[in-house]
Amino acid sequence: MSKPQKQLHLTAFMRPVSLHTGAWRYPGSYPDANFNLAHLTTFIQKLEAAKFDAFFMADHLAVLNMPLDALKRSHTVTSFEPFTLLSALSVVTTKIGLAATASTTYDEPYHVARRFASLDHLSAGRAAWNIVTTGNPESARNFGAAAHMEHADRYARAREFYDVVTGLWDSFADDAFVRDQASGTYFDPGKMHVLDHRGESLSVKGPLNIARPVQGWPVIIQAGQSEPGRQLAAETAEAVFCSPRDIGAAKALYADIKGRAEAAGRSRENIKILPAAFIVLGDTLEDAQQKRLRLDSLVHYDSAIASLSVQLGSDASGFDPDAPLPREIPDTNASKTGRAGVIKLAEEEGLTVRQLAQRLGGYGGLAFVGTPAAVAEEMGEWLAEGAADGFTVVFPFLPQGLDDVVERLVPELRRRGLFREEYVGSTLREHLGLPRPRNQFFE
Amino acid sequence: MSKPQKQLHLTAFMRPVSLHTGAWRYPGSYPDANFNLAHLTTFIQKLEAAKFDAFFMADHLAVLNMPLDALKRSHTVTSFEPFTLLSALSVVTTKIGLAATASTTYDEPYHVARRFASLDHLSAGRAAWNIVTTGNPESARNFGAAAHMEHADRYARAREFYDVVTGLWDSFADDAFVRDQASGTYFDPGKMHVLDHRGESLSVKGPLNIARPVQGWPVIIQAGQSEPGRQLAAETAEAVFCSPRDIGAAKALYADIKGRAEAAGRSRENIKILPAAFIVLGDTLEDAQQKRLRLDSLVHYDSAIASLSVQLGSDASGFDPDAPLPREIPDTNASKTGRAGVIKLAEEEGLTVRQLAQRLGGYGGLAFVGTPAAVAEEMGEWLAEGAADGFTVVFPFLPQGLDDVVERLVPELRRRGLFREEYVGSTLREHLGLPRPRNQFFE
Repeated sequence: MSKPQKQLHLTAFMRPVSLHTGAWRYPGSYPDANFNLAHLTTFIQKLEAAKFDAFFMADHLAVLNMPLDALKRSHTVTSFEPFTLLSALSVVTTKIGLAATASTTYDEPYHVARRFASLDHLSAGRAAWNIVTTGNPESARNFGAAAHMEHADRYARAREFYDVVTGLWDSFADDAFVRDQASGTYFDPGKMHVLDHRGESLSVKGPLNIARPVQGWPVIIQAGQSEPGRQLAAETAEAVFCSPRDIGAAKALYADIKGRAEAAGRSRENIKILPAAFIVLGDTLEDAQQKRLRLDSLVHYDSAIASLSVQLGSDASGFDPDAPLPREIPDTNASKTGRAGVIKLAEEEGLTVRQLAQRLGGYGGLAFVGTPAAVAEEMGEWLAEGAADGFTVVFPFLPQGLDDVVERLVPELRRRGLFREEYVGSTLREHLGLPRPRNQFFE
Repeated sequence: MSKPQKQLHLTAFMRPVSLHTGAWRYPGSYPDANFNLAHLTTFIQKLEAAKFDAFFMADHLAVLNMPLDALKRSHTVTSFEPFTLLSALSVVTTKIGLAATASTTYDEPYHVARRFASLDHLSAGRAAWNIVTTGNPESARNFGAAAHMEHADRYARAREFYDVVTGLWDSFADDAFVRDQASGTYFDPGKMHVLDHRGESLSVKGPLNIARPVQGWPVIIQAGQSEPGRQLAAETAEAVFCSPRDIGAAKALYADIKGRAEAAGRSRENIKILPAAFIVLGDTLEDAQQKRLRLDSLVHYDSAIASLSVQLGSDASGFDPDAPLPREIPDTNASKTGRAGVIKLAEEEGLTVRQLAQRLGGYGGLAFVGTPAAVAEEMGEWLAEGAADGFTVVFPFLPQGLDDVVERLVPELRRRGLFREEYVGSTLREHLGLPRPRNQFFE
């Protein structure tokens, strides 16, 4: 018997209207989805019918800091809070994983441990925690912190926060609750552990007032790509959500994180690398590209040119919008992180300044644009070449972009043996092929 | 036409197994309800069918501090976290209110404002916030605070916390989100308010990243009975959950809180006084009393005698369990707050030391015990005499105690015109007859 083919894992990285800033204006979109549970119910049920691993709710802890004139065009300013939303969606689904973001900088480990444990019990083992350290300085001002915590401090606190949360999840042995009505013993006190953590950043006594989660621990997700971010992921994450610009960068990142995980004493199999992929499908490559151009054209030029200026490290507002990018771009003191990539993108796709600006202002990350067959083929290459264990799918617009993926791409992946036909297990850990952690305090 | 008769409001104060510490051992109970969503779904759907105003989830932020030998008998140690649970239950109901407890001492106003706003959107206007200052010192140790905050400081922070949360709920005018696809304006920036709160205890910029709640503000509930607690309730609460020992004490409390509310410039009608009432029903008074004695007898004597000792301010462990309370009880330095009431209770009901201890260790608050007709009659008197606007119902055991109330007591109340036949509105504010608050920053 031949070894079963390796398959992709697929999670959906969601904002109710889409992550693309122009998506709410796309024909057929649901601009009111931010507070419309019926729409979100439809989305998650379609993703579950397609056997996606998880529904992953993106999040912010502030209204993003941008000039009012750009802010007023943004549908990403407001939406449901992730825990309340995912708890509601847990009731209308039975298999798909439910991933929520929670900050280690502006929350308390007792609260975070408790909410994820509760979501895991409500959903019978489908919760995942996306650990974020919250880089947005606007958030600090919503939590009484005048200055944003330094990058290194945030990562040190995050590491300790993870130890406390996982320690709290292990407060009770899996079999602690005997509920013996005759003797009157509700739980075995020898199977309750008081954490009594006193560390650099945190002091938490415990025990947690929740039974051990169904999955032992909810699945741990992380997105960090900085040096401390990669190290934190290697030590703690079970799914990594990253944004490499192409397959070459992805392979390097994949090898680096898996290597670091091994160096930390973990199995390479227990950390899944799932790059974020913006997927636009069409009947032909041109059709898909036209959809994307149309979507990008819905990003207001003022917002778009601001994004381009940031990435070029130069004020682009004086450039001719309908001409190619000028050959000579003046230097400024601002960051030029993305300049080379931006110039390459403009050349490769023959974009005007306007189109380039709208691309960056809409969704600037890794994209797969083409026919379902071509995209399925490419995703298979990423898997085969060790660039990814699957993808964190970003839909360009909803509902059509989601329908395209589940109705057209998923069947192409299945034809190639690259994606499951049915769920095998019932917990998110089982979908992802991750082991259930042993309780660190009890056999 | 005569003025329509005043009716009672009824909320259900819930722990999944019951608040009574012996309830998990009562015949027919669900000892595993703490993490069993199916049971809780049944409970809330029955309460909604009976047209209850709200389902109110009690909460703690710690495993309660008691000797392990008592703790191990307690089913109240662990259960679902309220926000995740109520969000899930919002999906299986359409009318009943959903009240969650959130602490002003160990949480952040941005998080609290956000979660309640989200629950209010998910449930189409059914959320309520039970403001607690968290008196349990064990909680402090789960949140990095070595010493518990002083009573007065907790109340000062609570008052400021309330101002910040309600200010954040008003971040956007009700009509801020225009979502004009043609012009690309998602919201009117003139209808967004930046709170920029800088106070004694809190510093929060805002705006909240959630549209204004459906109810304007979720309903505000409070339970404080201390001097600062009453004042906070009078200034902010729309429903007060209290524990007077009898109708006389209730009338005094009712008059005091309504008077304070008026003095604070509020209408007496906009603050509902809902004493907690433990309701045990039987075919006869004796039958109901027997049920209660049977339930109390399930409280372990060791736990029970500890409760009696605390309330007497004297070690009761040497008393004869099967004799009446001794006439002479030695004084100690401990608190004697409840001594007179305890002695009176023992005499009136002719309880032995064991029965008295089990009563106090099970549920020591106000109770209505009798036939459905007698209890309905008594509740009507409380309403007529200005002792209550309704009740916060505590079920002695589940599911039978809940079934008894909805199947036997509610029809008796309706026969007397004391309880609604149908919901008139769809939000919790409408059920309670409370006005929708105007946005303090916009017309």
